Amino acid sequence: MKISYRLADIAAQFGGHVRGDSGVRISQIASLENAQPNHISFLTNSKYRAQLVSTCAGAVILGEADADATDLPRIVSDNPYAYFAKVSALLNPLPEARHGTHSSAVVGAGARIDATASIAAMAVIGEGATIGAHSVIGEGCCIGANTVIGSHARLYPRVVIYHDCVIGDNLIAHSGAVIGSDGFGIAMGDGRWIKIPQIGRVVIGNDVEIGANTTIDRGALDDAVIEDGVKPDNQIQVAHNVRIGAHTAIAGCVGIAGSTTIGSYCRIGGSAGILGHLQIADHVEISSFTLVGKSIKKPGSYSGIFPFSSNEDWRKNAVHLRHLDELVKRVKTLEQEIALLKGKDR
Amino acid sequence: MKISYRLADIAAQFGGHVRGDSGVRISQIASLENAQPNHISFLTNSKYRAQLVSTCAGAVILGEADADATDLPRIVSDNPYAYFAKVSALLNPLPEARHGTHSSAVVGAGARIDATASIAAMAVIGEGATIGAHSVIGEGCCIGANTVIGSHARLYPRVVIYHDCVIGDNLIAHSGAVIGSDGFGIAMGDGRWIKIPQIGRVVIGNDVEIGANTTIDRGALDDAVIEDGVKPDNQIQVAHNVRIGAHTAIAGCVGIAGSTTIGSYCRIGGSAGILGHLQIADHVEISSFTLVGKSIKKPGSYSGIFPFSSNEDWRKNAVHLRHLDELVKRVKTLEQEIALLKGKDR
Amino acid sequence: MKISYRLADIAAQFGGHVRGDSGVRISQIASLENAQPNHISFLTNSKYRAQLVSTCAGAVILGEADADATDLPRIVSDNPYAYFAKVSALLNPLPEARHGTHSSAVVGAGARIDATASIAAMAVIGEGATIGAHSVIGEGCCIGANTVIGSHARLYPRVVIYHDCVIGDNLIAHSGAVIGSDGFGIAMGDGRWIKIPQIGRVVIGNDVEIGANTTIDRGALDDAVIEDGVKPDNQIQVAHNVRIGAHTAIAGCVGIAGSTTIGSYCRIGGSAGILGHLQIADHVEISSFTLVGKSIKKPGSYSGIFPFSSNEDWRKNAVHLRHLDELVKRVKTLEQEIALLKGKDR
Repeated sequence: MKISYRLADIAAQFGGHVRGDSGVRISQIASLENAQPNHISFLTNSKYRAQLVSTCAGAVILGEADADATDLPRIVSDNPYAYFAKVSALLNPLPEARHGTHSSAVVGAGARIDATASIAAMAVIGEGATIGAHSVIGEGCCIGANTVIGSHARLYPRVVIYHDCVIGDNLIAHSGAVIGSDGFGIAMGDGRWIKIPQIGRVVIGNDVEIGANTTIDRGALDDAVIEDGVKPDNQIQVAHNVRIGAHTAIAGCVGIAGSTTIGSYCRIGGSAGILGHLQIADHVEISSFTLVGKSIKKPGSYSGIFPFSSNEDWRKNAVHLRHLDELVKRVKTLEQEIALLKGKDR
Repeated sequence: MKISYRLADIAAQFGGHVRGDSGVRISQIASLENAQPNHISFLTNSKYRAQLVSTCAGAVILGEADADATDLPRIVSDNPYAYFAKVSALLNPLPEARHGTHSSAVVGAGARIDATASIAAMAVIGEGATIGAHSVIGEGCCIGANTVIGSHARLYPRVVIYHDCVIGDNLIAHSGAVIGSDGFGIAMGDGRWIKIPQIGRVVIGNDVEIGANTTIDRGALDDAVIEDGVKPDNQIQVAHNVRIGAHTAIAGCVGIAGSTTIGSYCRIGGSAGILGHLQIADHVEISSFTLVGKSIKKPGSYSGIFPFSSNEDWRKNAVHLRHLDELVKRVKTLEQEIALLKGKDR
Repeated sequence: MKISYRLADIAAQFGGHVRGDSGVRISQIASLENAQPNHISFLTNSKYRAQLVSTCAGAVILGEADADATDLPRIVSDNPYAYFAKVSALLNPLPEARHGTHSSAVVGAGARIDATASIAAMAVIGEGATIGAHSVIGEGCCIGANTVIGSHARLYPRVVIYHDCVIGDNLIAHSGAVIGSDGFGIAMGDGRWIKIPQIGRVVIGNDVEIGANTTIDRGALDDAVIEDGVKPDNQIQVAHNVRIGAHTAIAGCVGIAGSTTIGSYCRIGGSAGILGHLQIADHVEISSFTLVGKSIKKPGSYSGIFPFSSNEDWRKNAVHLRHLDELVKRVKTLEQEIALLKGKDR
């Protein structure tokens, strides 16, 4: 049976002020629209206040500004969205993994696996690798030789980490993620590409979550570094020698080219791109679908998106982009001629 | 030996009208250019009629408009491309998989695997999972706990489906596809990201085919839903809480952000993107490389592509985009000055 | 202990001219910034000459133009970057894989595995497949039935190659790569998509390296072909029937649509796209984030990137793109009116 908590228990753990009946019992979290009486819901945007009237939730989390907008039992928090995240984690703990190594897993010589770690079926742990306390290595994962994984990692099935990488505590890595693959290092000589060995590592801090099918290449000579709390979503490509600063969040399908350094607390929109050898400051926001082609030295929001329209309108307008320089010259000519006419006119 | 069919057998099965020798035997399908006498070919665009003259095909599928353009034995259909697809499927049945579970596979407690299903080497079936009749789970696939897969599924090697998902009949999933991974749910609190548990499921209808290395995230609170007949190609990212309407086709590398709803019978071009929390109507076509940044309420074709040109021309023209507003103001000024001059002139 | 080489040994093997002490011993390669006395470094751009003064490297590789810019023991080469690549490969040989097939691997009936090949744990080799001399098939790889892999291949963990593909010598394939998956072949008939069997193969030449999580679809009817020396980076999608010419390099996240032919020695930037059924000449460079929407017949560099700026500036400028056609008409009107005024003025 699912565990339930009284509103008072929740507030005791996470703070905030309870209004209304603090004894109401909560066993799950849900949207205002779908919540049931044993659910707690949340309002993070006053715009949706009207939903407070119709919700069947047993309780709600909201901000000070909305605290009087309902009579429901409620927790008032100065950051209701973060509060929601914490309550949801309380109500939805990860299933416990069984300690120990599945009989089908293969563990290389000299690997050190903590007694509280879990190695699932079909996983392969390379020679000399280290798996920290309470870490869970999912089905079919491959951990390369001498790679070190900290404590409380959770690797979903089929994650690959190449050799000699160093990973902090609390890593979450989703299926298909590849960490430490060779960077795109090739040199043209005598009409063919010569491979440049990629001898750096990937070094990852604590509290990083890596999305499904995301790839993070190892360094060419020095290391690629992902600092604490970085959150790359799915299908992201991080090329060799990249450094990503702490607590930067990156939405799906982004590509980051080699040797670029990204600051802390940046937010990068989906399918954006960042060229190589650039420096991006802290607290930079990049819009979806924007290519960053030079370094950004100041915090702020940056965009470069072609606005979409009906195919007809797009065609009509976009054709002129190939003649924009000419258009600007035509305007300049007009300005000169007007000046001339005005002169004569005087 | 490869099975062959008489033209008459094919028409008996799929309709259309046979012209010429209905007894010609066909054992494979091929392009007009490469077909041999035991092959059937097809013409779907009158533009390529000339190829009918030079082809070595033994027979051909074509439309009414082209029916008299050749003397070859032929099947006349009102949809020759769909006809070609059906004939090709007849001539190229999937190899039968052996029933039963490979000795190296691992099956969790309480899993229900139909006696006609096939579980290949190294596959892992989670506790309580269900695999329907005639379904084939390829090498190294991982099916999460309590996930239900319908009948006649074909999962190629190394597909991962997380726990608690529900999949209809006839799923085809290509290698590296990941279904049910956690969505990108994080809340900023006290200077760090707090993970929001992703407690929804992925619910997939019948007749869906999912391309290689495509990722479909589970819902944050409610379910992500892929309706019947949806066809996502390779390397696509479908974020949490997305709903995709029936028979929508999505080309490779598309990214769909969270909580967006896409209608039925849409066609989305390669590397396009759709931002989050949008509504896309039925029968909408989106061009490749287009970012859809607001909801689309009317069927039709939509584009937003920056036209490419030689690097030199691009540089010359694109530089003005950063001053387009200024250019528009200059034109406005010119218009006012002209009006003034014309006034004086009168 | 790591092997070391005298500068003279290196020059004997790879050419170039030694200046200074040819007896200095080198055991690793590093950047000028991080090199130690037992390291060799390299200078490939005179712009960074100043680093020659401060480096602790024991020796350096550089071009003729910079040959006198340091007193360090040095090798002078006419292509110092390619020279660096070769020296790095000498100093960083791949670890030897153990010959033979791991006890957990599954090998299908009729497969031919060379006695010098290595099949790692959890790998599955399909019926009738061929693995050439000295090839290494990594952990959890799946090789389809009747697929042929040449000699000296190195497949990292979890690569999938579907059935009936043909691969030359020296393939490197990184984790998560999928070769030979079905192309996106569907035909609309009676309101639903009908699958078109993909009966072509993927045929890959010699010396190809395929990045992590890249997908290469098999041909629909004929083969998809990747010629010698092609280098696709990570997260790339190559659709069915594509042909890529020899020594073309493709950066991460690129999408290439079906039936397109790309020439030799092309360079395609990250996240670029190429539409289907196009022809791209040899020696074409395509910028990152550029969509190529028509065939390119002449060598050269091509771009189509929307320039990014601050979000404010972008918004101000981009809004006019939806009215560019109108703007052009306004300029035309102005030109006519000016001509009229000038006429009257004369």
